[in-house]
Amino acid sequence: MPSLGIVAPQSMHFKAPLKLSSGASLSDYTLVYETYGTLNADRSNAVLVCHALNASHHVAGMYEGEGGKKNIGWWDNMVGPGKPLDTDRFFVIGINNLGSCFGSTGPMHTNPATGKPYGADFPVVTVEDWVRAQARLADELGIKQFAAVMGGSLGGMQALSWSLLFPERVRHAIVIASTPKLSAQNIAFNDVARQAILTDPDFHGGDYYAHGVVPKRGLRVARMIGHITYLSDDSMAEKFGRGLRNGGYQFGFGVDFEIESYLRYQGDKFSEYFDANTYLLITKALDYFDPAREHDDDLTKALAATQAQFLLVSFTTDWRFSPERSREIVQALVNNKRKVTYAEIAAPHGHDAFLLEDARYMNVVRAYYDRIGKEIDNRRRA
Amino acid sequence: MPSLGIVAPQSMHFKAPLKLSSGASLSDYTLVYETYGTLNADRSNAVLVCHALNASHHVAGMYEGEGGKKNIGWWDNMVGPGKPLDTDRFFVIGINNLGSCFGSTGPMHTNPATGKPYGADFPVVTVEDWVRAQARLADELGIKQFAAVMGGSLGGMQALSWSLLFPERVRHAIVIASTPKLSAQNIAFNDVARQAILTDPDFHGGDYYAHGVVPKRGLRVARMIGHITYLSDDSMAEKFGRGLRNGGYQFGFGVDFEIESYLRYQGDKFSEYFDANTYLLITKALDYFDPAREHDDDLTKALAATQAQFLLVSFTTDWRFSPERSREIVQALVNNKRKVTYAEIAAPHGHDAFLLEDARYMNVVRAYYDRIGKEIDNRRRA
Repeated sequence: MPSLGIVAPQSMHFKAPLKLSSGASLSDYTLVYETYGTLNADRSNAVLVCHALNASHHVAGMYEGEGGKKNIGWWDNMVGPGKPLDTDRFFVIGINNLGSCFGSTGPMHTNPATGKPYGADFPVVTVEDWVRAQARLADELGIKQFAAVMGGSLGGMQALSWSLLFPERVRHAIVIASTPKLSAQNIAFNDVARQAILTDPDFHGGDYYAHGVVPKRGLRVARMIGHITYLSDDSMAEKFGRGLRNGGYQFGFGVDFEIESYLRYQGDKFSEYFDANTYLLITKALDYFDPAREHDDDLTKALAATQAQFLLVSFTTDWRFSPERSREIVQALVNNKRKVTYAEIAAPHGHDAFLLEDARYMNVVRAYYDRIGKEIDNRRRA
Repeated sequence: MPSLGIVAPQSMHFKAPLKLSSGASLSDYTLVYETYGTLNADRSNAVLVCHALNASHHVAGMYEGEGGKKNIGWWDNMVGPGKPLDTDRFFVIGINNLGSCFGSTGPMHTNPATGKPYGADFPVVTVEDWVRAQARLADELGIKQFAAVMGGSLGGMQALSWSLLFPERVRHAIVIASTPKLSAQNIAFNDVARQAILTDPDFHGGDYYAHGVVPKRGLRVARMIGHITYLSDDSMAEKFGRGLRNGGYQFGFGVDFEIESYLRYQGDKFSEYFDANTYLLITKALDYFDPAREHDDDLTKALAATQAQFLLVSFTTDWRFSPERSREIVQALVNNKRKVTYAEIAAPHGHDAFLLEDARYMNVVRAYYDRIGKEIDNRRRA
């Protein structure tokens, strides 16, 4: 399948303050984004792709002069010419969220109120705050209604949130490997990861930029914890099992098992490029997402506000956000007589499956976008 | 049910070197232990209780002058007069393992070779090493054969190991909430916990005793990670759910959710009393346990050496060592035509269930000890 080829990020500055869920405001902010494909004449073929914990606006294609696999967009198998989300047919927007460390305004940027990096002063942002910021970018791009808003995991929460905050602006919401809210266990994993960062002596209360250090140790442990929850027990067993790195037990605390080597490598790599304050902010946005909270914990009541049609996809071995969690959303939508398509994909890869090539999964998404494309064609002929 | 009342630890010093699985030796060592009940005339009613990660020789009863719940033995609901393991009938031994921080020779004790605390020089010990050390204590107490060796989790591994290393010395092995070996996911959780400790700047390569500090931050995170794996998703949901500590979201990185408060408290408490080197050693013993390893990964071949009868118990919501893992042991024993009783207890509490009061569980263990008691009576009459 051909890739999009060379793509380039753009940025947009917003001067009007953004009022946040916490009551705080961002006086002004920048969003970094990418677009692929062409917006049609009646602006009806726009699709917004929302990113999860450690991703960005760089959804597909690659950057000029930076060849190699590492510069390919994070959902390149899903988005591109002829791919399930076909950029020959749709105008796709990837957008980096506030608080991120990949370009949009975040804790490492200058706080206009102090002239120093925000650090610990960057406000805690929610999924709803992100969606409101994204909506302003859509306004500027002249997109009144998205053909679809789509995301996996935390990205799926944003798609769901769009359908609640701007019901008339979303024709289809595509919510993959997601959940209507985190469980106590989900929150527990996030909090241990945060505690690893917060108690790293190099964290300096979030103002480590000024000290010329980075809380790498904490970030590394945080990533290792997170990574365990992205993989299934089965896929770990199959991929690593009890395989030994050096033939026999070493009787020390270096690497014995392949899984140790893999996880430490993932942790090391992540701690080189990711920002610790961003990790704290994004896990908090995950924890806080709970649209039923202001509706007596009744998800059916909460989703009454939606007008979109929905595609939900879950993966059988995902124990972070299990199929049961997707089914809760499906049931609440059905209770509201919304049009819902639901696919539960038998896949061995756990939560990570939403990022991987799986023929059944890709075909489900492709068929759904075909349908959206036909709707657009029919509208235009009408 | 009455408790044993006041009990007291004893200790025994061993002057003969103990050759370890690693090839290293401990030149001499001390084991701390407790006994409850009375050894009968033919020494046929002795039961050895092996401890898991954070427990000790203090299995039941309480210490003089130290009233209060915290000084009650860790399996007091299981062991005592009239309890499932009835100390009116059995002579019960609780023993603290090498490398522990509760009295038996461990990393905080003086290394006779250097005159300084062992620290990083304390050798990595295995389940098999522990069992061999325990066997010497049994020798000194004049116990040639145990009526039963019993343990939960890592304690269950010791019971299984006893039945392999000293088949003729174990009439019954009682293996609860255990596994024939850790999975890649189990090892992954252990390794993240170890990394948290090893990368704490206060760890000083394991020689923190000399620096007058303790790697509390790492130990705290390690315990939080471990604790998540001891509880089931369901029991966390039921006990904590998304309950908030302060009514609403705080929009900061303090405590929002009850589960955060609970886990941080558990981590704080643990880091006050547990030794970081001990944590490293005990998780490594868990990782290394794999009796099938030297038998072409064939558990049936490995367990051919056993002569004991077995009771295995697992708990439905235990995702650390799931029922499937116990069933692997059961199957391998059945393949060897051993006598096996297996109970899979429907309990909501995850791995921790093995420490909790559950009527069905307690009754299964009680019935099994009744049977052992009757065998002893019959032998004596014979």
